Amino acid sequence: MDGLMMHRPLLQSGLLDYAAEAWPGAEIVSRRVEGDLHRQGWAETRARAVQLSLALEDLGIAPGDRVATLAWNGHRHLEIYHAVPAMGAVCHTINPRLSAEQMIFVAHHAGDRLLFTDLTFVPLLEKLHDRLPDMRYVILTDRAHMPDTGLQALCYEDLLEGRATDRAWPEFPETTASGLCYTSGTTGDPKGVLYSHRSNMLHALATAAVLGPDLGPQPRILPVVPLFHVNAWGLPFTAPLVGASLVMPGPALDGASLWDLCQAEAVQSAWGVPTIWQGLMAEIQSRGAKPDALRHIVVGGSAMPRSLTEAFEKMGVDVNHAWGMTETSPLGSQGSLTPQERDRPFAERMALKQGQGRRVFGVEMKIVDDAGRRQPHDGQAMGELFVRGNTVAAGYHDNPDATARAVDAEGWFGTGDIASIRPDGFLTLRDRAKDLIKSGGEWISSIDVENLALTHPDVAQCAVIALPHPKWDERPLLVVKPRGDARPGLEDVCAVLRPHLASWQLPDDIVFVDEMPMTATGKISKLTLRQRFADHVLPDLR
Amino acid sequence: MDGLMMHRPLLQSGLLDYAAEAWPGAEIVSRRVEGDLHRQGWAETRARAVQLSLALEDLGIAPGDRVATLAWNGHRHLEIYHAVPAMGAVCHTINPRLSAEQMIFVAHHAGDRLLFTDLTFVPLLEKLHDRLPDMRYVILTDRAHMPDTGLQALCYEDLLEGRATDRAWPEFPETTASGLCYTSGTTGDPKGVLYSHRSNMLHALATAAVLGPDLGPQPRILPVVPLFHVNAWGLPFTAPLVGASLVMPGPALDGASLWDLCQAEAVQSAWGVPTIWQGLMAEIQSRGAKPDALRHIVVGGSAMPRSLTEAFEKMGVDVNHAWGMTETSPLGSQGSLTPQERDRPFAERMALKQGQGRRVFGVEMKIVDDAGRRQPHDGQAMGELFVRGNTVAAGYHDNPDATARAVDAEGWFGTGDIASIRPDGFLTLRDRAKDLIKSGGEWISSIDVENLALTHPDVAQCAVIALPHPKWDERPLLVVKPRGDARPGLEDVCAVLRPHLASWQLPDDIVFVDEMPMTATGKISKLTLRQRFADHVLPDLR
Ligand SMILES: Nc1ncnc2c1ncn2[C@@H]1O[C@H](COP(=O)(O)OP(=O)(O)OP(=O)(O)O)[C@@H](O)[C@H]1O
Ligand SMILES: Nc1ncnc2c1ncn2[C@@H]1O[C@H](COP(=O)(O)OP(=O)(O)OP(=O)(O)O)[C@@H](O)[C@H]1O
Ligand SMILES: [Mg+2]
Ligand SMILES: [Mg+2]
Repeated sequence: MDGLMMHRPLLQSGLLDYAAEAWPGAEIVSRRVEGDLHRQGWAETRARAVQLSLALEDLGIAPGDRVATLAWNGHRHLEIYHAVPAMGAVCHTINPRLSAEQMIFVAHHAGDRLLFTDLTFVPLLEKLHDRLPDMRYVILTDRAHMPDTGLQALCYEDLLEGRATDRAWPEFPETTASGLCYTSGTTGDPKGVLYSHRSNMLHALATAAVLGPDLGPQPRILPVVPLFHVNAWGLPFTAPLVGASLVMPGPALDGASLWDLCQAEAVQSAWGVPTIWQGLMAEIQSRGAKPDALRHIVVGGSAMPRSLTEAFEKMGVDVNHAWGMTETSPLGSQGSLTPQERDRPFAERMALKQGQGRRVFGVEMKIVDDAGRRQPHDGQAMGELFVRGNTVAAGYHDNPDATARAVDAEGWFGTGDIASIRPDGFLTLRDRAKDLIKSGGEWISSIDVENLALTHPDVAQCAVIALPHPKWDERPLLVVKPRGDARPGLEDVCAVLRPHLASWQLPDDIVFVDEMPMTATGKISKLTLRQRFADHVLPDLR
Repeated sequence: MDGLMMHRPLLQSGLLDYAAEAWPGAEIVSRRVEGDLHRQGWAETRARAVQLSLALEDLGIAPGDRVATLAWNGHRHLEIYHAVPAMGAVCHTINPRLSAEQMIFVAHHAGDRLLFTDLTFVPLLEKLHDRLPDMRYVILTDRAHMPDTGLQALCYEDLLEGRATDRAWPEFPETTASGLCYTSGTTGDPKGVLYSHRSNMLHALATAAVLGPDLGPQPRILPVVPLFHVNAWGLPFTAPLVGASLVMPGPALDGASLWDLCQAEAVQSAWGVPTIWQGLMAEIQSRGAKPDALRHIVVGGSAMPRSLTEAFEKMGVDVNHAWGMTETSPLGSQGSLTPQERDRPFAERMALKQGQGRRVFGVEMKIVDDAGRRQPHDGQAMGELFVRGNTVAAGYHDNPDATARAVDAEGWFGTGDIASIRPDGFLTLRDRAKDLIKSGGEWISSIDVENLALTHPDVAQCAVIALPHPKWDERPLLVVKPRGDARPGLEDVCAVLRPHLASWQLPDDIVFVDEMPMTATGKISKLTLRQRFADHVLPDLR
């Protein structure tokens, strides 16, 4: 028996229509590449998205076409984010931190026909232009700031000028593709995830349901996470739903710039990867105070070091680990505590906050062993995390091999992450499967060792990687970026680890780097470290 | 181009699965008919819903079957609410305040085969039994409390006992019917609205998005609104999504009982119709204090008198008008203010709070004149409110006439409410179309006149209804339930109205009642008043 209710497609265009009506007073504040601080409301954002969509139609962009961006967080990028899907086309965000090779690969693979870019990237694109012969460009600026370039480049503000500011958006099925984002390339080549209107809308609704209560009414949010990193974790869609104001940092992501922007714009909640918070905390410590209004941080992408979480929490900032992937839109779990958990002593709370929290509504989770057998949710058993839900990828764009490996016989997506789940639903990521160290038939979690090593005062950043070993299979090597000039000895660091780890879990050697190699989304690149230290000989093999 | 994301049906069973895992610490507290105060968590609620679903299968209930309830708010009613849809059957909530005729009508019309009922209603059902010959009954109690009855009645706790507490719920399309609720019968015969899993899930998600930030993390909510009044405004579905605790009042809805329950259970948010808040406010005034934790009220069903809103707000309780209908699941708009609006002076805020707030995400609104022409959203123009969205009825269960009248040529549902909408999105209901008074070609809003008349100290409740008039078409009659023994004169009340209304908007006469006739959902029944005063002769016609 069917219900007797209307059926309207869940389309992303509904978000801007809603925000324009329902949230007077909310604003998009953008630190622009041109140097100014720009402000506009959701109604103006909708009006400009309408103008942009009309311009795109004039440029021949049709439903299903891929439109690319190579841009920082700012209002124009946000306008593209909404206009392109609203007209039935697909917004492909390219990560400017990819290598030139990778950029060309993804632009070709996606079939991009038009690329919106910030002034910053014009020199880079001039170099790549030969290898993207059919690409047309739109520069995100006004006529006064248009660069002198050999690219076939249009001016964004010119495109919009004088066009109608209202339209009825087209209607189409909610399963229509709306966005394309490639994975970070941490473990291999980036793979394309093709979001639908339905998946992005349900992601926005679920995010609002689990994070809204912590954020409070119409919060002021700083997405440090870029719009090219999994839709800035969904914020472009969640914000118009809950009436948030977005404070867009543009290219200025260093601690000092973020501190100033948070303070000037009364930012309450800021979202980004751990390395960003390292920079902000250094700034806070040098100034002796946090930005006044800041009270909430969402952190994901890689594990937040416990010491860093504690430093923020001691200042009254609620740090919320979230776990997710490009393939999960991305929010899969989030760590906000129950009222009972909030009442526990500091150390217990911090231990909880090391975990990745509880699943978000709509994402189902199971952990399985190598043979695909479900493991108990007892907080002990480790297994590969598999997920299922409307916001989870069913495969990869134009990549049959990766698609074939993605989903198990029951239709669940294999994350490649190793996790345990407690009986009360709390998820803890133990490692990436590719980063686990297999020693004498037992697993060593690199995350656990790193977290402990970071409590040593001379360790600024660190990574534990596996080196092959004839007897034990693999043994851990500790790679350290020292905080100052002092280089701590292996025994010195192991003294910190020993109370918490079994002796066979301790690293066999320590090496130092001046800078950690980072991936395009700001994660330590263990792939690079493994290559760099491939020939390192461990002490017992010398 | 289609997205490449998983497609999972949005099923209500996912809510209990989620709450059982994600919200340890949240609880369902129930004041039971047996007299005790019962507590259980979401995990136990899920386990018992599983047991119930297995029992229902044994009783022959199959997908699509209608299962009825005639019960107060309590955990067993909530278990039915989840178990019945989870197995693919349809939960039909019957309003015990309907007349016997209406009850029999809706039970037959719905095709109910099984009815769950509280002990309270056994005597009533014994009387109706002849006219429901095929009905089977389950009494919501344990063996010790089973009544001695001639009904063919099973015991709820017996049904559950010893059954398995876990199962995988069946999967079916999200458009499957899940619930059936009849309208309040304020303007005529009740009409059946048939909700789907999709509509209820999207309603829960949208409610969480707009109300979650005001409610805060894992709030303790008192649904005074009954489970038989439009799904208790969706709380059975929103609560497991956001991890709310529900404090269920059972049959004790008087001011004193509510005060005590709020205080004992640290209720933060309470939801119900205006008459309920009248009772609670009287209790607050007689005790000299509000329940400590209470800080948020959601009020709907009919307009909240301004004086009552102000009394709560002065005590620090945020009163949120919401507008909705059985046909809109019900949340259509809600009145929580923007941060800027919260900063305005008290009188301005209270004026805003007289309105019904802004539309909820997913519900589109237009106002149209008699010819169906759209009226501007300028805060002045009045028109019939039409709505569209996934949570809006496309027609009525087995009622082709009403269905044919329900939806306009563009596919919008006509609410029968007259409203204006401000440029900033704020909706104000001016009247029901059937209650508007047409005088000399102009409309008089009964709501406006009533709100003003209620500021007179001797007016406890009032209603303005139209009487036919040979010259003016219709003229307003003011019906008053006096506060004490004093009966204010017409001129006395008009003195209060005159500064705010044009002279032709003032009532022509005043009459008194000892009790206001109420509908089954606690609204003043103007239908009854119009009948009762049909022969009243206005002064200028005497
Ligand atoms: N809160 C977190 N704690 C620990 N690790 C996290 C967290 N959030 C995300 N991650 C890691 O990031 C991964 C998802 O990252 P993303 O989709 O950006 O690309 P990637 O996995 O780094 O790159 P690729 O898939 O191309 O190798 C997760 O699988 C997980 O390993
Ligand atoms: N906040 C509110 N302020 C004023 N009126 C409201 C409000 N919320 C709901 N209403 C009124 O209640 C109506 C919906 O009520 P419901 O669906 O319970 O049945 P009913 O309309 O009273 O009965 P019937 O449709 O059978 O005549 C709305 O159409 C509106 O007239
Ligand atoms: Mg990955
Ligand atoms: Mg009605």
